[in-house]
Amino acid sequence: MTKGPGLLFVVSGPSGAGKDTLVEGLRQTRPTLRYSVSATTRPRRAEERDEEHYFFVTNLEFDRLRRSGGLLEWREYGGNHYGTPRDYIERSLSEGYDVIMKPEVNGALAVKAAYPDAVLIFLVPDRFSNLRERLLARRTETNEEIARRLEIAQQEMKCIRRFDYLVVNAQDRPQEAVRDLEAILQAERFRIHRYPDDSIHNVETS
Amino acid sequence: MTKGPGLLFVVSGPSGAGKDTLVEGLRQTRPTLRYSVSATTRPRRAEERDEEHYFFVTNLEFDRLRRSGGLLEWREYGGNHYGTPRDYIERSLSEGYDVIMKPEVNGALAVKAAYPDAVLIFLVPDRFSNLRERLLARRTETNEEIARRLEIAQQEMKCIRRFDYLVVNAQDRPQEAVRDLEAILQAERFRIHRYPDDSIHNVETS
Repeated sequence: MTKGPGLLFVVSGPSGAGKDTLVEGLRQTRPTLRYSVSATTRPRRAEERDEEHYFFVTNLEFDRLRRSGGLLEWREYGGNHYGTPRDYIERSLSEGYDVIMKPEVNGALAVKAAYPDAVLIFLVPDRFSNLRERLLARRTETNEEIARRLEIAQQEMKCIRRFDYLVVNAQDRPQEAVRDLEAILQAERFRIHRYPDDSIHNVETS
Repeated sequence: MTKGPGLLFVVSGPSGAGKDTLVEGLRQTRPTLRYSVSATTRPRRAEERDEEHYFFVTNLEFDRLRRSGGLLEWREYGGNHYGTPRDYIERSLSEGYDVIMKPEVNGALAVKAAYPDAVLIFLVPDRFSNLRERLLARRTETNEEIARRLEIAQQEMKCIRRFDYLVVNAQDRPQEAVRDLEAILQAERFRIHRYPDDSIHNVETS
């Protein structure tokens, strides 16, 4: 029963559900978990480091990556391009690392299409009214943008059934959702289809 | 997103894989977990309590239970009958308790046939040679019986793919397997098919 390749975990859900905080919490408790770094054409901010926060690329490089199948999913936001490089993920998985990423819902479904073995986790706030409050609280969007985001969120909720897990992030107990995600990360490696035939054969005859 | 009925967990695997100790360990860490008590025609031992260790029944009562569909699975061992009463499990699940049981492999598959939602966990010792040692160490079987048990174990291993999870019980790190089982018990409640449609509808519109 040898250690196989790592597992790919995709945490998604409506904007403002608390993905960033939870994934950050997970990374601190599971040091063997690698975070999938996105590529972006957005200019680097002073506090950001290349290859840690993003792979900062030119429009030309981004286009080349996308056309050559080098991106698992991509999107445009605020006039900039964002995408998930396939190469970094595949390398990490084959080295036995688990990888976690937090794309938008459409991106998550694109990843599942490319990697049917990926584990898709849908994260929702405990009350939808909270989503509005959270968006208001972070003060990064106008009221119009918030209305649009809530509309998108409603659309995204319709995709829940295509995910593997649904985790509720209770605003007043964020540690609970981190523990729930940890349990999923831990349990998934024991699912029977994760074991290659030869590892089970070893159990049978050893 | 209301709390639904409990989940049914079935831990099985070859004799001597350490099921009893692990399930006992789980019950201590998860007080809301109910253990499925078996019915048996075997005479009660002095230290055993009815309804706690077994439901002690007569041959006639056992037969009546079995024929009326009141047993999820049953078996004969040493001239006595053993079976899993359906009633106790269904009552516990509907009250929101999780239930754990540890039948033999054939029994586990019978339970899955009756409850497709049951979570089947196959437990194996880390090395098969350990199984022989464990059986020898507990000194409750003759060499002939041990040989027969190992043969049965080999047969049982062929059913692994019909289980949902495979957990390895490393003899020198039993706490690890308890934690692995805990993660499975925790993670399973977030699987998307566990959520009834109306609970997801509530999320969408609340």
